[in-house]
Amino acid sequence: MPARPALRLFTDAALSAGATVALSEGQAHYLHAVMRTAAGEEIALFNGRDGEWVATLTETGKRRATATAQTLLRPQSDEPRPGPWLLFAPLKKDATDMVVEKATELGASHLIPVLTRYTNATRVNTERLTANAIEASEQCERLSVPTVAEPEKLDRLLDGWAPARCLLVMDETGAGRDVASALSALPPGTEAAILIGPEGGFEKSELELLHRYPFVIRVTLGPRILRAETAALSALTCWQALRGDWQGRPAFRGG
Amino acid sequence: MPARPALRLFTDAALSAGATVALSEGQAHYLHAVMRTAAGEEIALFNGRDGEWVATLTETGKRRATATAQTLLRPQSDEPRPGPWLLFAPLKKDATDMVVEKATELGASHLIPVLTRYTNATRVNTERLTANAIEASEQCERLSVPTVAEPEKLDRLLDGWAPARCLLVMDETGAGRDVASALSALPPGTEAAILIGPEGGFEKSELELLHRYPFVIRVTLGPRILRAETAALSALTCWQALRGDWQGRPAFRGG
Repeated sequence: MPARPALRLFTDAALSAGATVALSEGQAHYLHAVMRTAAGEEIALFNGRDGEWVATLTETGKRRATATAQTLLRPQSDEPRPGPWLLFAPLKKDATDMVVEKATELGASHLIPVLTRYTNATRVNTERLTANAIEASEQCERLSVPTVAEPEKLDRLLDGWAPARCLLVMDETGAGRDVASALSALPPGTEAAILIGPEGGFEKSELELLHRYPFVIRVTLGPRILRAETAALSALTCWQALRGDWQGRPAFRGG
Repeated sequence: MPARPALRLFTDAALSAGATVALSEGQAHYLHAVMRTAAGEEIALFNGRDGEWVATLTETGKRRATATAQTLLRPQSDEPRPGPWLLFAPLKKDATDMVVEKATELGASHLIPVLTRYTNATRVNTERLTANAIEASEQCERLSVPTVAEPEKLDRLLDGWAPARCLLVMDETGAGRDVASALSALPPGTEAAILIGPEGGFEKSELELLHRYPFVIRVTLGPRILRAETAALSALTCWQALRGDWQGRPAFRGG
């Protein structure tokens, strides 16, 4: 396996041997002003489709940078199968940013901001969340970036739900099963989404609504009251440890 | 069960029926200026020893507040057995604060800042960390507050380790077992500590040192590179879900 450059960037462009790609203006600034890289230096590039490549910087200006892909580091097939979706009620800015960053590290494949009765924020900057997800993907060595949906109301989301995907609802009333048993009871190959309520919890009528759908599984995360962002991380962690890709190992950190 | 007052505070003082306790100056300010409470209103008090009590505020001044314990809400024996210790290399201020807050929510019983070769911060304000742990305990409805130790160097900590407590080392080289199998393999009743390295990871010689101790178990948290604070939360989550107290339910949230 070729040596892995320390700098790792996401691009939308297609990647193949010899392909020269233009990086974004933000990336050009980062490479030029922050990292002070020069033409000829190597970086890693990935785009979520064509694997991860060693690329040589061919131009590093204040506003414009280009790189030419050289050698395949990891094929896209090295990426584990897509992780669960995460549906979360938007929180304060810092907490929402944290949920996106950590959900990316924990392998969520799709993030949906959900508007509930007690949701604090109704406006969500999905562009900023996508930028956070890209940065976290670069950092945690994913080969993909989770997609970020536009915010949707809980009842509409449930109405349009494709029932093959189970919806694990973190329910702090304690009415659900404990998370380890709930996950162990799912048939092999089950695809899942995790739903986390807002700081104020779900309204009673929302819990009743959720309970009516056969794809909903209510889950409890123990005796303490977790903040919403902690519940999101804990639920994703349990999925990956028990049903997900945590049998895998980091690609470049061995010995 | 008596109704649970929304406001919940920790005190060092002994609690029993009729006992009047002086709250701290910070708590007096919070009750007076932030929550605008008045004498006669009810709060909940806990101290980590005598359970949780409904108490009536008897004085609410700018700098002085007192409350008289009335009715026992939950005996101390309702608290699950103490959770794992968390040993973590201090991070930047915000990340360290987050680790303390989330570790408290996730039931850690004792927090030890550990100085390693690549640790970013060497000064740790353990008083501030204790204050964070108290606030998180109040919020998450714990009956106890995790203790915070003074920072210690990794080699000295290992030298003085009581070997009955296993030390689960989160090792991003991927040399360890996956966390679910590692935890399942422990004998019943095992007590544990979780060790998280600094942002830069452990130095190779540190991993070799760790590997020499029979109480050390190396654990892997999957194929992505988690930030240190994410690893701390994920490791505590897996412990609670698989070996800890997550069979329990929140005391006051039912129905």
